[in-house]
Parts: sequence; structure tokens; C-alpha cells
Amino acid sequence: MLHPDRLLPSDPTTRDIARNLYAQVKNLPIISPHGHTDPAWFADNQPFGNPTDLLITPDHYIFRMLFSQGISLQQLGIPPVGREAQTHTDPKQVWQIFASHYHLFRGTPSQLWLDHVFAEIFELPEQLNADTANAYYDRIDALLQTQDFLPRRLFERFNIELLATTESPLDDLKHHNVILESDWTGRVITTFRPDPVLDPEFEGFKANLSTLASITGKDTSSYSQYLEALSVRRAFFKAHGATASDHGHPTAGTANLSRSESEALFEKIFRSEFSAAEAELFRRQMLTEMAAMSLEDGLVMQIHPGSYRNHNSHLFETFGRDKGADIPVQTEYVKALKPLLDRFGNEPDLSVILFTLDETAYSRELAPLAGHYPILKLGPAWWFHDSPEGMRRIRQQTIETAGFYNTVGFNDDTRAFLSIPARHDMSRRIDCGFLAGLVAEHRMDEQEACEVAEQLAYGLVKRAYNL
Amino acid sequence: MLHPDRLLPSDPTTRDIARNLYAQVKNLPIISPHGHTDPAWFADNQPFGNPTDLLITPDHYIFRMLFSQGISLQQLGIPPVGREAQTHTDPKQVWQIFASHYHLFRGTPSQLWLDHVFAEIFELPEQLNADTANAYYDRIDALLQTQDFLPRRLFERFNIELLATTESPLDDLKHHNVILESDWTGRVITTFRPDPVLDPEFEGFKANLSTLASITGKDTSSYSQYLEALSVRRAFFKAHGATASDHGHPTAGTANLSRSESEALFEKIFRSEFSAAEAELFRRQMLTEMAAMSLEDGLVMQIHPGSYRNHNSHLFETFGRDKGADIPVQTEYVKALKPLLDRFGNEPDLSVILFTLDETAYSRELAPLAGHYPILKLGPAWWFHDSPEGMRRIRQQTIETAGFYNTVGFNDDTRAFLSIPARHDMSRRIDCGFLAGLVAEHRMDEQEACEVAEQLAYGLVKRAYNL
Amino acid sequence: MLHPDRLLPSDPTTRDIARNLYAQVKNLPIISPHGHTDPAWFADNQPFGNPTDLLITPDHYIFRMLFSQGISLQQLGIPPVGREAQTHTDPKQVWQIFASHYHLFRGTPSQLWLDHVFAEIFELPEQLNADTANAYYDRIDALLQTQDFLPRRLFERFNIELLATTESPLDDLKHHNVILESDWTGRVITTFRPDPVLDPEFEGFKANLSTLASITGKDTSSYSQYLEALSVRRAFFKAHGATASDHGHPTAGTANLSRSESEALFEKIFRSEFSAAEAELFRRQMLTEMAAMSLEDGLVMQIHPGSYRNHNSHLFETFGRDKGADIPVQTEYVKALKPLLDRFGNEPDLSVILFTLDETAYSRELAPLAGHYPILKLGPAWWFHDSPEGMRRIRQQTIETAGFYNTVGFNDDTRAFLSIPARHDMSRRIDCGFLAGLVAEHRMDEQEACEVAEQLAYGLVKRAYNL
Repeated sequence: MLHPDRLLPSDPTTRDIARNLYAQVKNLPIISPHGHTDPAWFADNQPFGNPTDLLITPDHYIFRMLFSQGISLQQLGIPPVGREAQTHTDPKQVWQIFASHYHLFRGTPSQLWLDHVFAEIFELPEQLNADTANAYYDRIDALLQTQDFLPRRLFERFNIELLATTESPLDDLKHHNVILESDWTGRVITTFRPDPVLDPEFEGFKANLSTLASITGKDTSSYSQYLEALSVRRAFFKAHGATASDHGHPTAGTANLSRSESEALFEKIFRSEFSAAEAELFRRQMLTEMAAMSLEDGLVMQIHPGSYRNHNSHLFETFGRDKGADIPVQTEYVKALKPLLDRFGNEPDLSVILFTLDETAYSRELAPLAGHYPILKLGPAWWFHDSPEGMRRIRQQTIETAGFYNTVGFNDDTRAFLSIPARHDMSRRIDCGFLAGLVAEHRMDEQEACEVAEQLAYGLVKRAYNL
Repeated sequence: MLHPDRLLPSDPTTRDIARNLYAQVKNLPIISPHGHTDPAWFADNQPFGNPTDLLITPDHYIFRMLFSQGISLQQLGIPPVGREAQTHTDPKQVWQIFASHYHLFRGTPSQLWLDHVFAEIFELPEQLNADTANAYYDRIDALLQTQDFLPRRLFERFNIELLATTESPLDDLKHHNVILESDWTGRVITTFRPDPVLDPEFEGFKANLSTLASITGKDTSSYSQYLEALSVRRAFFKAHGATASDHGHPTAGTANLSRSESEALFEKIFRSEFSAAEAELFRRQMLTEMAAMSLEDGLVMQIHPGSYRNHNSHLFETFGRDKGADIPVQTEYVKALKPLLDRFGNEPDLSVILFTLDETAYSRELAPLAGHYPILKLGPAWWFHDSPEGMRRIRQQTIETAGFYNTVGFNDDTRAFLSIPARHDMSRRIDCGFLAGLVAEHRMDEQEACEVAEQLAYGLVKRAYNL
Repeated sequence: MLHPDRLLPSDPTTRDIARNLYAQVKNLPIISPHGHTDPAWFADNQPFGNPTDLLITPDHYIFRMLFSQGISLQQLGIPPVGREAQTHTDPKQVWQIFASHYHLFRGTPSQLWLDHVFAEIFELPEQLNADTANAYYDRIDALLQTQDFLPRRLFERFNIELLATTESPLDDLKHHNVILESDWTGRVITTFRPDPVLDPEFEGFKANLSTLASITGKDTSSYSQYLEALSVRRAFFKAHGATASDHGHPTAGTANLSRSESEALFEKIFRSEFSAAEAELFRRQMLTEMAAMSLEDGLVMQIHPGSYRNHNSHLFETFGRDKGADIPVQTEYVKALKPLLDRFGNEPDLSVILFTLDETAYSRELAPLAGHYPILKLGPAWWFHDSPEGMRRIRQQTIETAGFYNTVGFNDDTRAFLSIPARHDMSRRIDCGFLAGLVAEHRMDEQEACEVAEQLAYGLVKRAYNL
């Protein structure tokens, strides 16, 4: 069902070049340096649940679209917070609803990923729809119980060289420990994501500071010990393989307060007597502090700003976070990053990878910044823009200014483990098509394009993330 | 003169697919759910005026371009306000000026629409220019006096299934009445556009409230009766066929004030003692009130924000509004719509269609919002963006996140009745080309594309506007 | 090494049309109405320095990219301010570093321009890389010492009909004088760029006012004499061939203060007792004053707003301005230009050319403004956007609204004299490709496209700059 030329440009000259480039990169190992899969899968290596639990319930790309067309989360088996026990939905019925609405995903990357999963991983021969829903469900359900579909076996079958998950600094990393101590050779590392203890407006922030104190033995009511506690946890993460941190703030803002200003601000934050502006200022200062620590311990910083989280108040109150209601907002970088850049912008030993949900920043801000500052690199198309058109736009709008070598290859950034090969394959195809376009217009020769294609699929990510 | 493959992609593979898709949709009836034609044409069914009065004087796309190149509005026969009687311009001379400058429209949709009108409706065999101007004028002028060019005959010839006009809430809808009571079967409905009585900064706002009072018998100095008066007019419009309201505010802002706050604000507004910020707050609150009424009466809300109206002060003072000097401004939706969405965002029985003149909102804000909230749908490319490139951009930048089924088909949004077939044809061709590109890259199969093409040309608009 | 079809669209139909169009324009003379070459070159007609001094050290496109990848400016032979005498770098060693990192420029316009220079001007048969670096250096170095590579000979060889440089109002224009009084027929004119005496935050502003006073005999502590001094210098520039002024403010803001407000503001500015907001207001008022003077003396105004200059503080302090650290910021035009437009927007004898680094303004603000106001024209893709993709975007996003005839042809805007033919050639190829796309989609006929191609390459620039 999957066409061998899918996602390659239709112009025959360009497609031929793209095919050649793609042939060079399609079998390169997958490196997934940033994502949200569950390390327990690889620690425990137990069979995944049923098709619905695996493919629908956790995927906000899917239920956001169904929700937008009037299907409630309850119908999809997603329980209100605190009522998980009382919520019993027949997974097969949910699957039927999903299949009956599969046309809603026409033209979206979700359909391309899912079709790849269905065809390549489960070898399903027909299109999913209301009629084939049952057969799909049964086949997937049966296969998931077999040895070949255990998490580690899939990891190997997917040719994954390295997979990074993302954890709270309060996580004990026990699953990573199990993996490290096992005789399995798969590399699954963690990423340090300190938002829960850096963002005063994060749910449970105050309790998180207490936990941070208890696991580090530091008094997190003191600013200096708070910073030490963060440093201790970074070291702990690094010891479990982390090579990077990740930061999901509402803005890209940074600050460079004096020590006494920082302490005074922290005191307000700690006492929970702060304004929204003070919370923002604290997050800004903390990004700069994280950069300072990165300079010490070598963790690469990733900044993922500009998502208005949990925009749908009613949904958030009832169902909690990550329910498909995070909406991008305009995001400024040039003024926002200046305090951090004034302090660390030219450091040879620091690396900061910038992401955006606001594509207007590509050509205006991000490419010029990454094409100048030694510490800055440009991350791949993120989230809503991790799609064929989105990937083309980021290339068209940044490469001419930033070049290829200030970029970092692909991130799948996914919770959906089974979609990882589909996502990397899409990225490789689109990049080969983009490069083929340059070759077809004689803007690059074919040998150069081949080298760049390998860098985009494999070389750059290893270097950027110190892997 | 019109090439059968015009506006289809030039790549031969893609063009072939596009041709097949287009063949399926080109003869579907036209549904025009939002526009600005004059209902008197269809009520009275009198011959249109001369070519200049029909095609140039009322079309701000045309005279804005001529004006930008130094041709005064007087030269084009557009009179200063209040001096209509003293302005006598030979329409044939105006036509000659227009024809001599026709090259200015190269590359614009206006030329494509006009060429379609000239070739298809008037069967003119050559390109318009200074030399052919006279022959053009004479032929068009003669044809306009014939039975075949009466408004109702053209309506039928254009295969229009339904046409919506747009009226002030103070309009008596007498033309719609005539149409409804006639034996003509053409469907011409109205749209409720309450800006003149919702926007405190609208010309004549205070007088408009008085008129509203007199035609509804409500005391519009009282907030509650003001709301009742609006509700009465909505019912009146609905009785004349309206299925939608339309709102052209400077921003997409909404508010959710308490009843007492609203009353206090209205009092200031009514006394004309308000600041610009209070005017804006009132418009915001009124959008939310309109949503509340829509939930009651089922009218679909259209929001057309972000035009800086009458930017050219001198022109506005001399010639009045709608003289080609409305300029788009940056328009934010995520924070702007939140008050309305917090209150009504998940209502199954409400429908809000969003438009924009700020294309940066497509991928960043509008597609993620429409791809999540059940009440939101995404309108087609609007005004300056209602063009081949503009239509491609909106598809490329929204479909991957919102899908096709959160969009509403095409709007021609025109005052230029004769251009309606040209505009719908352009939209169908561009959409078929876009879909053909997906098929050519194996991102969609041809049968799916065919279904989607029919939805975009016909199915979605019927559903979205309850037609 | 240069492919004859480079930069033309790969679709065979479109490429054929593009080839025909390009054949009509490729040999048209070059008009370069805005740039930053050194007039001393053409006055003195001495040999250029070595390859490094000519091609690397002055080109911030090149060293910004090398710097972003960890190569210090010192390594590239760029001296810290005040330490020029102590900085001795072997130019051949710098060339070797550059050549070894030439892959960094893959996909950038810099590589396309450089390859053009190497192949066409120096007839170098192979690709530059670490191995060929020496041979490149030696050949270029040798050629630069020959008669055929003297500045005036290259000017003629490049088929330049006119070249405009850009000077401070304090410049004595002695090089232009030499050129004017010589028997050489090459036309090199100046451009009036008054930022150093209009922008209170410009380095040395206060001293600049003193110099302005001494060269004009006006008392620049008086607002009226300050304006007179500016007017005197404009006349001086005009007498040396200037047909345009140029303004590089941080924003596009304009103001329309009363005379007494302006005087009071100027007093603060002159006493150096002003806030950042007052500096901005002064710049805004000065743009409007410049427009008033343009109306008198006929100089065309160019506005180049929206660059955050010298963003890298450390680099600026050590190495000074123009070191590749100017970063674009969001730039608003609709409200910003209104004060100027309210006063002069409809003047038949004024011409203002707008540029942007913020591409979001193309379709939203600039095309609608240029497509309406008689005084406004739209400049070509600027700086980071002067690239194949950037040029395509500006056409795709502006022509449908502004038309071709509200644009002004191409600007190379370069300090790199040798790259001028490469840059104009790129622009002609991309424009022919864009037009060919319109022809291939039957949106324009081939004869029209041919006329427009000639206008874009030659006709429009002559008219727009009064050349």
C-alpha cells in the first residue's frame, strides 16, 4: 500500500535525483535524541496493550481531530481526572469510531504515519475504514501479543541506534537504571526537563520543590541550595546517560539578574507571593542559570517555547493536561535571548538548540541568529510543523541564511513509539526531495547533496547532541 | 482566450490528475454563502448600467491599483461624497483609461477574473488594451441591455444554487422580501451584519441605535432592551433566510464581562463618553453576546477581523469608505478568542467561522484552534489572499493541522456579481491542483482526492452554513 | 562549472519558457541603484588587494557563517578596533581556512555568488576546497594585478550602466568628484544616507552634528538651522548625482509633530537628555521631515527598517559595527507610516520605496500599502532574503496585490563589487522562472511575461530612481 516514491517531488527530473539520495540514507540507523516514549516499555519489555490503548488513547494528534468534529473524549475512552476507575469503554468500540472517522485525517501527517505503521509494522493490506476496522483491530491485537512485537524487539527491528526519553528532575530514573543494568544493548537515555521545578506556574510547583529538597538533601528554600539541588539532579541525569536538557517555557525570554536580585525574586517565588510578570522573570533567569550549568556539565540545552498550554479551560479542568488543546502563540527570540547571549553567546563549549511553533521566526530571527552565534543551533520543524509542508518550509526559510551545518538533524518528539520509523522516514524523504530540488536547479551538485543528506539523517544529530 | 488548463499545476503528472479532479467538480452548482452583491438587482431584475458603472466604479480592487499609479478617483468617475450630482464623467472615457492601464493588473487575480468575465460572459475574442477598449465597451454595453443579461438570467446561467448578501441590522430587507414573494426560484438570502450597531466607533453609531429603537420598539438606552432589540433583528433576518451573522471588527478580541460590568460599559458607550479601549472592550463583549444569541437561534457566526479601515484619511474625508484603502494589520487569535471559547468553545450547537488577513495566523493559530475546538471552523483565503498563490498558501499552511473537514469551502465575498463564476472556478482549479499534488506525491489516493474535491467545492459549504 | 540553466525551474515546460525569457534579459545593462561599494575604487582605479582582502575580510555574509561554526574573527584576519596595526594575519592562511570550510555555504546564496565570481570572473575550472585553495589564491592574486582587473575595467566588463554608492551626509564626496571630473564615462553616483545625523543613538551623533555645522556654516543647535543644514547637504549630494536618500532606522515609525513640539524635542536631543522613546520619536519625525524635503528636491526616499544592529555586544565592543551580528526584528508598517502618509501619501511628486527584513509584512502590509498609495513602491527582497527562495517568496506574496508596476526592480545592496553580476544574474533568473510559472499555468501570456521580465531587469529601476 505504501508507494516507494511517496513524499518525493513529482517532477520526474527531481524525483530521480531524490530517489538516488534517499537510497543512500533510507537504511541509516535512527537516532532519536528528543522524544516522550515511556522508558518502562524498554525496561520491562512487556507486550503493549490493545490497539486502542497503544495507538489512540495516548495520541493527542488523533483525539484532538476527533474532538474538533464533535466526538467527546469520553467516547474515546479518555477518562476525566480522578474517574479513571469508573471509566470503562470498550476499546474495540473506540477503534470503530476512530476508523469511521479516518477520512478526517486526509492530508494530515497523522494519516501518513498511521498508514506507515499499519502497512509496514502490521502488514495490513487495505485502507482503514469503518468496514475494515474489525479486521484491523483483531490483527493488531493478536500481533501485539507475540514475541516479535515486544518493545525491545521492535526497537531493534526499527534500527534505532539511540532513543532519548524525557523526564522530570524528580524522576528516580529507575527504568533507565533497569535498562542500563540489563544485558540488552539498546541505548535508551534520559533528558533533563526541569520545568516542574523551574516554572512557578507549573502544577504542583511548591510540592515539587519539597520533593526536590528531599531527594537531594538540599534546603530548597534557599536560592543557593536550590541551584545546588538542580545541579545535583543534572549530574544524576548525566550519570544515567543524559546529554541534554529541555525547556518548555511559554516564551523564549531570558534574563540576567544580579545574584541579589535573583535571591529576592526567588524568595517571593518560594513564598508563592508573585505576580505573573515575576513568574515569567523567574523562568527567564532560570534559563540563563541552566545555560551556566550547561557550560559546566556539558549538557546541550533545548528550548521549546511558545505553546499556550491547556488553552481549553473546561477540558483542562476535567481531563487534565496534554489533551490536544495546546495552541502556539507568537514567539519573539531576538530580544528574548539577548540577556543569555550577552553572557554566553560566544562560548565555544556551550550549545543551545532553538525550536519554534511560530514559523514567522524562521527567516526573520532564527536563521540569522543561528547563522551568527557560535552557541546556537536550529532544531527541526516542531509539533504541528513536523509534516511534509512544514519540513519544506523550514528548509526553504532557514537554510539560505543558517546553512545546513547550523541545524541538528531530525527529532521525532513523539509519545507514539510505533510511529518513530514513519516519522524518520518522512523526514529523510522530504530532505532528499528538498536537496534534489537544489540539484535539479543546479544550486548544488549531486555529490554535495549526497553528503548533506547523510548529515541531515545521521551525522548532524550525533554531533549536536554529543552522542 | 481562456486556456482549459489555466491555474492547474504545470508538472504533467500533477496536471493530469488535476484535470480529472476538476472535471468532477467544474459543473457543480455555485453556493455563495458570503458576499456583497446588491439584492435590488435580483428583486427588480432591471438591466445593469453601462460597462464602467458595472465593472469599474464599484470595484475597489480595480481603482486602488489605478490610484496607486497616479490616476485620481475623479478621473475614474468616482464622485466626492456630497458632490455626486456635480460629477459627470464620460463612462467611455473612464473605460479607455482603464483599458490603457490594463497591464498594471498583470499577475493579479483581478486580471484573471476580468479575463474570465470578458471571454466567458461577453465572448470577447481579444485581450483588452487601449486599442480594443472601444470595441469592448460597445459590445458589453449592448449585451447588458439584452434579456439574456438581466440579473436573474445571469444568476441562472451562472448555475448559482444560493447567494447570500450582507445587510445592516437596520435594513428593512425589502428587496429580499420582493424576491421571496416573487415566483422566481432563485435563492437569495441575507446575512446579519451588526457592526453599525455593535461598534461604538462605526460612523453614525448613535443614530443607528435610535433607528434600531424605532424599528424594534425597544428602548436602546437600556442594555437589556438593546440586547433584545438585537435579538429581534436577528429573528427578522432569520425569517428572511439568513443562516449566518458576520462581524468585521478591528481585532478578533472577545470578552466575558459580568452583567453589571456590561451594563456599566454600555452606559458609557450610550452617553458617547468612552475611550478607544472601552470601545474595543464593548466590541469584544458584543462578540460574545452574539455567540450567546447564536446558540439560541442557530445563526452561524463569521468573524472577519484585522482590517485597518479607511487608512487614507484624505481619501476617506473626500470620498468616504470602501475606497481601496483598507489595510490588513497583525491579528492575534489565541488570547483574543479565549473569553468566548472559555464560555462556548465546546458547545455542540454553535459554529464560528474564522477568517484572517494575517496569513501568519494560519499555521500558528488558526489551524491548531480549528483542529481542536468543536465550535471553530476555518474560512477560506480572504480578500487580498483570495488569489491563486493565497489559496495555495492557506491549504499548505492549514490542512496538515486542521484537516479538510474543519474548513468551509469557498466564499467569493464579492460586490462584483459578474465575477462570481470566475472566482469559484479559480478556487476549484486551485483546490484540484493542490489535491493533485498530494496524489502525485502519494500522500492521498485519487479516490480520496475526488471525494475531498467535491466537499471543497460543494459539500462543506452547505454543511457549514446550514444551507 | 556554471550550468546554463541554473536557478531556473526544473519542470521542463516551465524551464523552456524561462530560458526564452532569460535570453531576452540576460545581456541588459546592470543598473545598481543602491549599494555599498567604495567610490575610491572607481576614483583611483588602483588594483584591488589580495583575494582575502577583496573577498573575505569585508564580507559579513562569509565571516558570520564561519564565526557561527567556531572560527574567531582574529583567525580570519579581522582586527579588534584600535588594534589594526598589531593584527597581522597571513592572507593565504585565512584563505585556506575559508576554503576548508566552504561546505558550510552549501545551500546559501553566498556559495552561488562566489561560484559565479570564481567561474566567470577568474575562470577557475574546479570547485573551491581545501585542496584547491592554494591554486585559487594564486590565480586570483595574479589576475588582480593585471590591467583587466582594475576597478573601471571590471565595471565596464560587468556592463554596469549606473552604480550608486551610499555616503554619510558628512562625506565630502571627493571620490565622486574625481569620477565626475575624470574623462571616464562610467556613472557612479552617491546616495544621501543621513542616519548619522538623524538618529540620536547613532555612534558619535553629537560630534556628527558639530561636523554638520562646520561644513554647512549652520548653527545645528537651532532646530531650524539643523533642518537647513540637512537641506544644504541634500543639495550637495544631488549636485554629485544623488537621486535618492536612504534611511536605516530600527523601525518604520514616522511622526507628524507640530513645529513647536519638534523644536522642544530637538532641544532635548541636542542636550543629550533624551529617553529611548524620545530618540525613537525624533527619528520618526525626521523621516517625515525628509519626506517634506524630498517633495522639494525630488530625491526618492528609501526606507530600510527593522534591523537590530550589533546584537552581539561583546563582538561590537571588540570589533565594531557590521560584523555579521545584525538581526532582523518584527517590523510594523501600517500604523508606523500613517503620520507620514496622512501628510504626503497622495502627493504625485513624491516617491518612497519600502524594504523589509520581516517577510510577514509582504502580503499583510506592504503589498496592500504599495497597491494603494501613489507615493509608495515596494523594494526587492533585502539582505537575508536576497536569495533564490527569498526572491520567490516576495514575488509570490506581493505581486497578486501590488502588481509588478508598484515594484522597483532589483537592488544588489552589496559591498562586494565582484558579486554584482552574480547577484543581478540570480535576480533575472529567478524572475524569469517566476514569470515562466505564470505562463505555464496560463496566468499570463508569453508576450506579457517578456515585457514584464524586461521591466523587472531594467525598466522599473530606471523609472523608480529617476535614472
